[in-house]
Amino acid sequence: MDHYHAVIMAGGGGTRLWPLSRKERPKQSLKLLGERTMFQIAVERLAPLFTTDRIWVVTSDRYAADLHRQCPGLPAENFILEPAPRGTAPAIGLAAARLRQRNPRAVMACLTADHFIGDEARFRELLAAAAQVAEQDYLVTLGIAPTFASTGFGYIQRGERLERVGGFEVYRARRFKEKPAQPEAEAMLAGGQHAWNSGMFVWRVERFLAEVERQIPALHQVLTAATPEALAEVWGQAPDTTLDYGIMERAEDVAVIPADGLGWNDIGSWEALLEVLPTDAAGNVVLGAEHLSFDTSRTLVHASGGQRLVATLGVSDLVVVDTGDVLFVCPRDKTQDVRRVVDALKQRPDGAEFL
Amino acid sequence: MDHYHAVIMAGGGGTRLWPLSRKERPKQSLKLLGERTMFQIAVERLAPLFTTDRIWVVTSDRYAADLHRQCPGLPAENFILEPAPRGTAPAIGLAAARLRQRNPRAVMACLTADHFIGDEARFRELLAAAAQVAEQDYLVTLGIAPTFASTGFGYIQRGERLERVGGFEVYRARRFKEKPAQPEAEAMLAGGQHAWNSGMFVWRVERFLAEVERQIPALHQVLTAATPEALAEVWGQAPDTTLDYGIMERAEDVAVIPADGLGWNDIGSWEALLEVLPTDAAGNVVLGAEHLSFDTSRTLVHASGGQRLVATLGVSDLVVVDTGDVLFVCPRDKTQDVRRVVDALKQRPDGAEFL
Repeated sequence: MDHYHAVIMAGGGGTRLWPLSRKERPKQSLKLLGERTMFQIAVERLAPLFTTDRIWVVTSDRYAADLHRQCPGLPAENFILEPAPRGTAPAIGLAAARLRQRNPRAVMACLTADHFIGDEARFRELLAAAAQVAEQDYLVTLGIAPTFASTGFGYIQRGERLERVGGFEVYRARRFKEKPAQPEAEAMLAGGQHAWNSGMFVWRVERFLAEVERQIPALHQVLTAATPEALAEVWGQAPDTTLDYGIMERAEDVAVIPADGLGWNDIGSWEALLEVLPTDAAGNVVLGAEHLSFDTSRTLVHASGGQRLVATLGVSDLVVVDTGDVLFVCPRDKTQDVRRVVDALKQRPDGAEFL
Repeated sequence: MDHYHAVIMAGGGGTRLWPLSRKERPKQSLKLLGERTMFQIAVERLAPLFTTDRIWVVTSDRYAADLHRQCPGLPAENFILEPAPRGTAPAIGLAAARLRQRNPRAVMACLTADHFIGDEARFRELLAAAAQVAEQDYLVTLGIAPTFASTGFGYIQRGERLERVGGFEVYRARRFKEKPAQPEAEAMLAGGQHAWNSGMFVWRVERFLAEVERQIPALHQVLTAATPEALAEVWGQAPDTTLDYGIMERAEDVAVIPADGLGWNDIGSWEALLEVLPTDAAGNVVLGAEHLSFDTSRTLVHASGGQRLVATLGVSDLVVVDTGDVLFVCPRDKTQDVRRVVDALKQRPDGAEFL
């Protein structure tokens, strides 16, 4: 299916993995899982399904050169530069407009650069199935069958069953639900009618751009800019909004494929990283450091500030992150609160160097 | 009293404060309490009582230059070099022999370089009182009135009351007891007849050397060596033993002064350091690092590997020590087990660089 393109969104910052993730070192450029960056992993898992000329990256000028260095096999022209970050809706709109110029029949998968996917072969099967559904003019959202009552993800309620494609059940999407409170999350998990919203979508570019034109005409107008210079001039007029909120919640003919077995995780916290990485017998994960462990269990040690010896004695359920300039110590079940540290640094005159 | 001399024992290694204390960086040379090394503090607290020509240091060739750099006001000839470390009995024997050459009537206080003393004025009062008792030919041991049932110190049982000197009660010492088990420690605390053995002693050098001659004639023979070269040749014949075990346990006319109110602590573990240092309102101690603290209490952060930001979130009763090449994380009540890490490093081919 040579008109099927993958578009990787890699413009983001994000500080949920502070102190490792920084403004200049976003999550997609981190070697969270070992030797390869998250972006490299995201590109490489697509290779069996997409030739490199059909793998696109939406990012900003700030990150493009580094990302290209990470994946030199991608054509330079496949890096689509946002003049400034304005949310996923303008970013994907830009990619869709570019792809329509090449081929009005193009189908695009909108993918993330910083998520963990355990079963990559199954992920590609899902992408292939989603493209078939997209060809029927649905806006397809890739759902994740929930495994616990998460309050950290958005949810998608399914409606009528549409079909079965490539081993996946496909449903009409009835309702998008933003991150819920705990009781609501538990009710949705128990009800069995909701999938997590992975933030990944598949659609025909023309179908998507028609939806943009209908819902956000100002954005559609911006996307008609003929040159990079013209685009930069009008980009500020694009509403700063996400695909979910700006397009999907009020879109027509939305489908959802609630996939299970992907081993998907958005690695939204240090604790999440500890969950996806292989552990030793005591449940520890050690990256980047030589570790001397005594009575230590369920602990993550992540050292990127130069090789050093890390000795832990009598600790459990702890996260220790050493970036050289910063040392962060936190119990694993509190790691989502790292934003408190980040917020405090934003208030400090000298905080910027650590952000 | 110009024949009263202070001898600081500063030859020791010790790894109880690993990874900060190392073979080449012994405890007495560490800035555990802030800006000054333990050795500098030990010398400076003596200055109101001893002129610098009467402050002596027993150490080894390995440490002498560094110690002299720390206290350049001490005369070079006051650094007495052991040819090799052989315990406190030969070390103090060496110093006693040297002092006797100067003045057979000399009284010497045998002091430590790596202990914390909160009330330095009271400590000097104790030293002055002890000298008066020593002039009566007692071997005086400085005791510490115990404040809890410690299993980490030796104990001294007191016998008959001898006198009151300078506000201190003086007793004949009945029995030396090495580090006890917990029930025995509790019984001794409850009984009120025992003091901790501080490892500090005061005596006339002739009286002490006579005791050496009586109990360890081989050591006494070694101490008669006339030159450093002669000493180096016979030093290996000196028994490797401590003052406590080699001399005091079987000595005659031993006195003990069980002092209270000194704020004495031998800083035998990271937890002990946390106990003697001033804390913030949440009970935290931070040295050498900029600290961002969130929901953090009773925690010690000690950073000596270059200025860095240390952020702790949701931790309590933890010790974090960063020396640049090593990071050590341990709950405060487990820090005495650091010897397990040290022992493991001794077994490793590449462990020496961290010891």
